Amino acid sequence: MKVLVLNGPNLNLTGKREPEVYGTATLAEIEEKIRDLAGRIGVETDFHQSNHEGELVDWIHKAGEAYDAVVFNPGAYAHYSIAIRDAVASVPVPVVEVHMSNVHAREDFRRRLVIAPVSAGQITGLGVSSYLLGLRAAVELAGKRVRAERNGT
Amino acid sequence: MKVLVLNGPNLNLTGKREPEVYGTATLAEIEEKIRDLAGRIGVETDFHQSNHEGELVDWIHKAGEAYDAVVFNPGAYAHYSIAIRDAVASVPVPVVEVHMSNVHAREDFRRRLVIAPVSAGQITGLGVSSYLLGLRAAVELAGKRVRAERNGT
Amino acid sequence: MKVLVLNGPNLNLTGKREPEVYGTATLAEIEEKIRDLAGRIGVETDFHQSNHEGELVDWIHKAGEAYDAVVFNPGAYAHYSIAIRDAVASVPVPVVEVHMSNVHAREDFRRRLVIAPVSAGQITGLGVSSYLLGLRAAVELAGKRVRAERNGT
Amino acid sequence: MKVLVLNGPNLNLTGKREPEVYGTATLAEIEEKIRDLAGRIGVETDFHQSNHEGELVDWIHKAGEAYDAVVFNPGAYAHYSIAIRDAVASVPVPVVEVHMSNVHAREDFRRRLVIAPVSAGQITGLGVSSYLLGLRAAVELAGKRVRAERNGT
Amino acid sequence: MKVLVLNGPNLNLTGKREPEVYGTATLAEIEEKIRDLAGRIGVETDFHQSNHEGELVDWIHKAGEAYDAVVFNPGAYAHYSIAIRDAVASVPVPVVEVHMSNVHAREDFRRRLVIAPVSAGQITGLGVSSYLLGLRAAVELAGKRVRAERNGT
Amino acid sequence: MKVLVLNGPNLNLTGKREPEVYGTATLAEIEEKIRDLAGRIGVETDFHQSNHEGELVDWIHKAGEAYDAVVFNPGAYAHYSIAIRDAVASVPVPVVEVHMSNVHAREDFRRRLVIAPVSAGQITGLGVSSYLLGLRAAVELAGKRVRAERNGT
Amino acid sequence: MKVLVLNGPNLNLTGKREPEVYGTATLAEIEEKIRDLAGRIGVETDFHQSNHEGELVDWIHKAGEAYDAVVFNPGAYAHYSIAIRDAVASVPVPVVEVHMSNVHAREDFRRRLVIAPVSAGQITGLGVSSYLLGLRAAVELAGKRVRAERNGT
Amino acid sequence: MKVLVLNGPNLNLTGKREPEVYGTATLAEIEEKIRDLAGRIGVETDFHQSNHEGELVDWIHKAGEAYDAVVFNPGAYAHYSIAIRDAVASVPVPVVEVHMSNVHAREDFRRRLVIAPVSAGQITGLGVSSYLLGLRAAVELAGKRVRAERNGT
Amino acid sequence: MKVLVLNGPNLNLTGKREPEVYGTATLAEIEEKIRDLAGRIGVETDFHQSNHEGELVDWIHKAGEAYDAVVFNPGAYAHYSIAIRDAVASVPVPVVEVHMSNVHAREDFRRRLVIAPVSAGQITGLGVSSYLLGLRAAVELAGKRVRAERNGT
Amino acid sequence: MKVLVLNGPNLNLTGKREPEVYGTATLAEIEEKIRDLAGRIGVETDFHQSNHEGELVDWIHKAGEAYDAVVFNPGAYAHYSIAIRDAVASVPVPVVEVHMSNVHAREDFRRRLVIAPVSAGQITGLGVSSYLLGLRAAVELAGKRVRAERNGT
Amino acid sequence: MKVLVLNGPNLNLTGKREPEVYGTATLAEIEEKIRDLAGRIGVETDFHQSNHEGELVDWIHKAGEAYDAVVFNPGAYAHYSIAIRDAVASVPVPVVEVHMSNVHAREDFRRRLVIAPVSAGQITGLGVSSYLLGLRAAVELAGKRVRAERNGT
Amino acid sequence: MKVLVLNGPNLNLTGKREPEVYGTATLAEIEEKIRDLAGRIGVETDFHQSNHEGELVDWIHKAGEAYDAVVFNPGAYAHYSIAIRDAVASVPVPVVEVHMSNVHAREDFRRRLVIAPVSAGQITGLGVSSYLLGLRAAVELAGKRVRAERNGT
Repeated sequence: MKVLVLNGPNLNLTGKREPEVYGTATLAEIEEKIRDLAGRIGVETDFHQSNHEGELVDWIHKAGEAYDAVVFNPGAYAHYSIAIRDAVASVPVPVVEVHMSNVHAREDFRRRLVIAPVSAGQITGLGVSSYLLGLRAAVELAGKRVRAERNGT
Repeated sequence: MKVLVLNGPNLNLTGKREPEVYGTATLAEIEEKIRDLAGRIGVETDFHQSNHEGELVDWIHKAGEAYDAVVFNPGAYAHYSIAIRDAVASVPVPVVEVHMSNVHAREDFRRRLVIAPVSAGQITGLGVSSYLLGLRAAVELAGKRVRAERNGT
Repeated sequence: MKVLVLNGPNLNLTGKREPEVYGTATLAEIEEKIRDLAGRIGVETDFHQSNHEGELVDWIHKAGEAYDAVVFNPGAYAHYSIAIRDAVASVPVPVVEVHMSNVHAREDFRRRLVIAPVSAGQITGLGVSSYLLGLRAAVELAGKRVRAERNGT
Repeated sequence: MKVLVLNGPNLNLTGKREPEVYGTATLAEIEEKIRDLAGRIGVETDFHQSNHEGELVDWIHKAGEAYDAVVFNPGAYAHYSIAIRDAVASVPVPVVEVHMSNVHAREDFRRRLVIAPVSAGQITGLGVSSYLLGLRAAVELAGKRVRAERNGT
Repeated sequence: MKVLVLNGPNLNLTGKREPEVYGTATLAEIEEKIRDLAGRIGVETDFHQSNHEGELVDWIHKAGEAYDAVVFNPGAYAHYSIAIRDAVASVPVPVVEVHMSNVHAREDFRRRLVIAPVSAGQITGLGVSSYLLGLRAAVELAGKRVRAERNGT
Repeated sequence: MKVLVLNGPNLNLTGKREPEVYGTATLAEIEEKIRDLAGRIGVETDFHQSNHEGELVDWIHKAGEAYDAVVFNPGAYAHYSIAIRDAVASVPVPVVEVHMSNVHAREDFRRRLVIAPVSAGQITGLGVSSYLLGLRAAVELAGKRVRAERNGT
Repeated sequence: MKVLVLNGPNLNLTGKREPEVYGTATLAEIEEKIRDLAGRIGVETDFHQSNHEGELVDWIHKAGEAYDAVVFNPGAYAHYSIAIRDAVASVPVPVVEVHMSNVHAREDFRRRLVIAPVSAGQITGLGVSSYLLGLRAAVELAGKRVRAERNGT
Repeated sequence: MKVLVLNGPNLNLTGKREPEVYGTATLAEIEEKIRDLAGRIGVETDFHQSNHEGELVDWIHKAGEAYDAVVFNPGAYAHYSIAIRDAVASVPVPVVEVHMSNVHAREDFRRRLVIAPVSAGQITGLGVSSYLLGLRAAVELAGKRVRAERNGT
Repeated sequence: MKVLVLNGPNLNLTGKREPEVYGTATLAEIEEKIRDLAGRIGVETDFHQSNHEGELVDWIHKAGEAYDAVVFNPGAYAHYSIAIRDAVASVPVPVVEVHMSNVHAREDFRRRLVIAPVSAGQITGLGVSSYLLGLRAAVELAGKRVRAERNGT
Repeated sequence: MKVLVLNGPNLNLTGKREPEVYGTATLAEIEEKIRDLAGRIGVETDFHQSNHEGELVDWIHKAGEAYDAVVFNPGAYAHYSIAIRDAVASVPVPVVEVHMSNVHAREDFRRRLVIAPVSAGQITGLGVSSYLLGLRAAVELAGKRVRAERNGT
Repeated sequence: MKVLVLNGPNLNLTGKREPEVYGTATLAEIEEKIRDLAGRIGVETDFHQSNHEGELVDWIHKAGEAYDAVVFNPGAYAHYSIAIRDAVASVPVPVVEVHMSNVHAREDFRRRLVIAPVSAGQITGLGVSSYLLGLRAAVELAGKRVRAERNGT
Repeated sequence: MKVLVLNGPNLNLTGKREPEVYGTATLAEIEEKIRDLAGRIGVETDFHQSNHEGELVDWIHKAGEAYDAVVFNPGAYAHYSIAIRDAVASVPVPVVEVHMSNVHAREDFRRRLVIAPVSAGQITGLGVSSYLLGLRAAVELAGKRVRAERNGT
């Protein structure tokens, strides 16, 4: 099983940017922890980060063909990118949406989640664990999907 | 470590009520799965369900004294109970909010989450896994809190 | 056929409270009139009133198993209780919503009816007749449901 | 006693139009059922249907002089015709508003009821029964009005 | 000079309908007073009342060709008829909008005036005087228009 | 009979300021026209203009004691001064609100009229005629009030 | 194939009214152009214009029985007539909505399109071409519908 | 004279919960201070706290019969409980609403006060003094009511 | 200790203006009662009333230097004067906001309280008692402030 | 004449993605049909699709110099990209906006069309025909523009 | 060249009031810095501060005649004074609006800027530099205006 | 000191696009003027323009490491790009936001400024001067920051 861990805008600065909100672990360190867990549960992972909305759309499309599931932190695009929403709705693989910070406890505009209605589920506010639990969820959903397809449902 | 798994209104009907939304597992079966995982990771769990807002407030208060963490599915109260919100904000233990269905993909009024700004994190839309991942998150947060207290921070 | 007549908050004061809005008949007198009509059309009725949201949820659940239909005046909860809404949506029996006063002719907040989208129908503004017509409607809907079940639809 | 049963726009298509919403009975068949009940309770009924807002205003005015009560299904005009609202408020006879479908369970704009604050009561969502119960309510209100006038109140 | 005095829905009931809002003078009596003033200031007047939105549109069109000005009480249509608004905007003659009652002191929805942005001016809340002052204003505006046309501006 | 003609902020610049909106007549010239008409109909007039909200409140209070009626152009304060609204509501004499420009045809914020619900009537969009017709209306309302007081109603 | 070209309020004035918005071609000239195109593609056309909402409802109903498709410019009713919306939703033939002006580039209230959710498609802002392209679209949709019916889908 | 001091949800935690908002005095200590003042001004007091909306409704009803006045801190229910609002409106005794914190200086949702329109008055933001001043106000209002009843007004 | 009692617009008319809302006591009589209580609790009071927003700002500034506390009835400015809000936020002395009428039971616009977030507390709806309780609150807060300053906190 | 057919985000998946909404024709097949029509009416076409907002801006700029018109399906960007709106407004060539699905019949957020006020016209809901009719409209508008430039208007 | 530096409400307290927002420089010190820069670039400056809305209107009027430009910090009036807005729109000289604090980073109500649409430009959030840069901008705009007038444009 | 002058979407067309809004100077000419001023005050400048949101995020990140300050005209992204907002908030260097046109005097949607709450200040509506004054502001803020770091604050 192959899972894409996709990160949106400004997440390349994680660990340096607003540490009181996002903690001090860098994106590389977070990816390391995800890779560890993935190894333990026998899953292959790829990582990509982009600040470009269109590039994230491209990667979601790619994931629809080359991956079994996506763990996706859309960053700020979670709040307004209908283009990404439509991309997520367009692909057959489960996309689990994760946020490190509790978006409901911040500015009002962060409570509008435009991708959430079409993502498979959301894990929010749990720091690095949001990714780790997101990986578990993605793997389980992908497993179910494979079994459903085998059974012809 | 002792975790309270608290369920709000109408969740006693899970498995019977709108199975296309909530699945066919009954609340007892869900609790069984949670207990299984709890056992495997060495955590003690108690379960309570209530349709009464005030009773949920009472239990949150109680959890503040007698439990290390709460996995809480507030059901419909998630969308308007400021009383429960204030209860969650009043207790020192982490309260992880979980929802089986993807509240963002249903009626508009379910996108208003009044407890979320004060809950420790939210796990949404992943069916029974919402509880299981919620338990993992609660345990981790409770562990951090204990270590922080020991270190005097 | 067995119909539950369920009354929500403050309706125990009917006849004493704001008589220019609710008339001077007490709840007991209203129930008497309902029982009369029920007797004439050969229906058994039970009556319950509660000021507690959770208790109303409990009774709706109970009605789902022990009654053929419900005539329900949710009182103020009509305007904000999503918990009761979910309870009504969870049970297979028809729930006819009734209001004695014309909620559309009063304060703005009474025009928001959160239970109405899932109740079988609404009868509003007709005083005691709201209950009596509600009983007739409930009996008819319950009859249809029974016939539909017999016919396997 | 003479009751006008007045129907608004598109109701002439009932039975042909969106049968999953409005049932398969035609307007003529519905009127037949109303005439039946009227006969049984000793009431005379007239029927009129119009797609024209102004014509409905005219008929409400006429009803204020020539009828004892009105059973009125304003159709779509229920949601925006202030002209009809003012007509209903202008006449001394009771106007009972009926809707066959549950307007609260459909599009958002159908939840705005501009005539309801001045109609005597509303019966909603009960199909043909909305008319039949509406007739009973209209007759009762008209009776009360007559008695009140006799008593000089 | 020829002025059309045009009245919208329910104004045929003036004097009978809600006398505390509209006074006790009937429409015929009001028209008599307008005719009196018109006679004194040497203006010819025609009167038309209709409850039909389309008919009012037709009359506004007609006025654009056969009258020098319009005194127009659109009644309830003032609050939502964009069709009438467009008719008023389409004709070259001045249309003075009048209301007998103070629309700002009544229900909120009466404060939305959709025709007002394209009517030549509004006179509101002054009872029968709203018409009389409206006639004076219409005559003056029509006079200016005639003079402007003569001067080629 | 004594009428106060009261003008609000920026009206001292009339004739110089935005002539395409307000015309080229100066405030002095407008007052001259009003004085002319007042003379012809046998009414005494006083004039006051102020840019100060508090001063306008003071003058309304004064008018309540020393004048029979007020013709009042509140200028921009029409759109937000609740203090002036309360002043107008506090005095027993009729206050006719006038606007030279059609406030409904300009910026959205000019359509909010906070004084209008308590002013006796409004005359809007008719340029200098707004004042002249406003004077006629004020005189008539003051006359009615005097007669009513004499008759003890 | 028979197509009804239906025009709403004020379109009888096209060419005379606000030519900077609607161009200088009269309705008769526009209809001539439509007839030309219809002739070339072998379609029969009828034309009707009305300022009356109810009459437009009547014509839509008629079209449901006697025409294969409708090209419909609802004029101002596009922005508030739920009655017409319901009529369009009630008939089985395709109704293509056309607007000569770009409604999105004008007043805010013209951006609310209440009929659009149930019309087959919309062509907006292209002047007379809106009708011509609308005719092509209507003919194609009607053709598809006929073929689908023949194939029993 | 007998006054009920009624406290709503989470106020049992006062002194422990968010001390920077609510101070460090416990509910018992606050009640002690109230009892002191009550003793000094010769008033008898009873105290009740509940986290249950329905129970608060029940107590308000009870107060309507067994107490002369109520000092009521509705806690979070102040912001959404229409059921409690209706209870307060239903009883003849004065209910003075008190809040320890300044609800206007906190989250937006705390500025919505649904009970306030029917409570006798509100005292907000003054910590324990809110209760003490509330007691004084309640006693005075109850005294006036008794005197008014004696005088038959 | 020296307390300023500051009154905003139209309060000079108290006792004459809308007595059903504000009672029949004049401002002078109210000030007399306040002076009485002040005398009894050993506090010096000054009184000022102004209809001018700027003057109220000036007085709040002055109070920041020459008084220990302010009892402030901002009248209508409570609902929109951000200038006064900023003045209150700028001074170190406690400003207790009082309203004689229950602003929550009147027009909607009176429920917007822009000064309240920065005033020390609010006492509303209790007639003359609002001032008297406000004086007690102001004195207590001023005392606490003095003691805090002495203790260097 | 040279026309650019520009497609926005996710349209590369057309035919694979949500076929019940967008049909089963792939983008290549759609382009083929457009090329066919273009050939028949003697127009040269270029095609470009991008998921990147900035790239679409770049292409609109390019079209302003190298093409005579644009047929543009902005996809999801239609609902929020002010950057693209400004690009469309910046170029002198006509940009005809097309949508395959009826955006008014889908989620609420798709009814907000931010580019529409500056596009030359919109064709919506007609599937592949939206492009074909859009091409006809673009060609006509470009022709008019060329003629207008030649005539020096 | 003569520039008026005009300051609105509460700015007389600058340096004393909320220094974390407005810095510690007093208004006198700020004016000193402005005078310094003015001297260096050869401009004469006058300074005025007022807490009175009407007085600010008066000064804007005066500036229209006696100054070449205005640097204006409207303080809180920036957010609601339409009277000042109209004054600024009435005068021919450029008025540059300045704010020391970043109004967009504070309370929501400070983001509503009612004067900004008619001021020549805005400089916000740069502390004392807002004034200094505002002076430079005002001087440049005034220079352009003079040159344009000389050239007769 | 090194300052990045960063320009957002469509600004590459400045001078060609809507000259009545943006003037006739091209971006190259504007950059020349900025370079001039920079030279005079001894600052090094780099220039970058992009229509791509993601590229602007990338450049802000780069500026956080390689520049002392940024003068940033976000163009249309100012109104909706939360991704750029987060980038600006993530970097330690001051970002001064500039707009050539007065965004408050244009369409409503341009008054929503999502980056402004985290930019150091805003200079709006002053044409090319917005950049020049922005450069001065950026230099001053960068200087302060350097000094603060040297002083260890």
